[in-house]
Amino acid sequence: MPSLFSKIVDGKLPCYQVHEDSFHLAFLDIFPLQKGHVLVIPKKEIDYIFDLSDSQYQALWKFAKDVANKMKKVLKCKRIGIAVVGFEVPHAHIHLVPINNIEDMDFSKQKISLTSNEMKEIANQIKETTS
Amino acid sequence: MPSLFSKIVDGKLPCYQVHEDSFHLAFLDIFPLQKGHVLVIPKKEIDYIFDLSDSQYQALWKFAKDVANKMKKVLKCKRIGIAVVGFEVPHAHIHLVPINNIEDMDFSKQKISLTSNEMKEIANQIKETTS
Repeated sequence: MPSLFSKIVDGKLPCYQVHEDSFHLAFLDIFPLQKGHVLVIPKKEIDYIFDLSDSQYQALWKFAKDVANKMKKVLKCKRIGIAVVGFEVPHAHIHLVPINNIEDMDFSKQKISLTSNEMKEIANQIKETTS
Repeated sequence: MPSLFSKIVDGKLPCYQVHEDSFHLAFLDIFPLQKGHVLVIPKKEIDYIFDLSDSQYQALWKFAKDVANKMKKVLKCKRIGIAVVGFEVPHAHIHLVPINNIEDMDFSKQKISLTSNEMKEIANQIKETTS
């Protein structure tokens, strides 16, 4: 069965998209740690990030850098934090989280809640900014 | 003043080294979340990982992949988690953490304590394994 993220890639599930190219997709995490928390995925479904080939893996990280630079321009934060954990969805994904201190990256904290309009607005702001 | 990590690179401070090439260094975190928690750094001192040039940044991630594959062979864990936060030391560093569940990556938890001999033994095991 395709992963939740493959369904998003195939357009069978919606997402708040922030960036895309032929091989990668970036969209807002619907359970965000912070406002503007983004997930970056390879369109190809692979569970463990280190199982990507070197070139696929490096292209994914370059794509994530472009997304992080776009986020940093739009969101009020000191930096963009990175996390790859991988027990939630068996499809490699990089968390990019706008942070001002180490606690902002604490995955055990309660997630924040935003309206659909707020999510759309943030996604569009990131999407429309150059990296 | 050079960062704590630049002092390690210059040999002015000791570390439990696990891997090295001309541009990168990997060593055990002395405040580990889990046994075998590794830090990967570029030898060049840059605070924010996304300020590395694309080629420096991609080379750093490739080096981290090699280290993670070595760790996965030696340490008993489901996968190697990744985190880049960056408020502790102003020198870009990638945390590679052997994990079995999401809680194993919780940076707010109390760090574990290992003896110098245990640290040496883990570092040597990782160092001597092929990636």
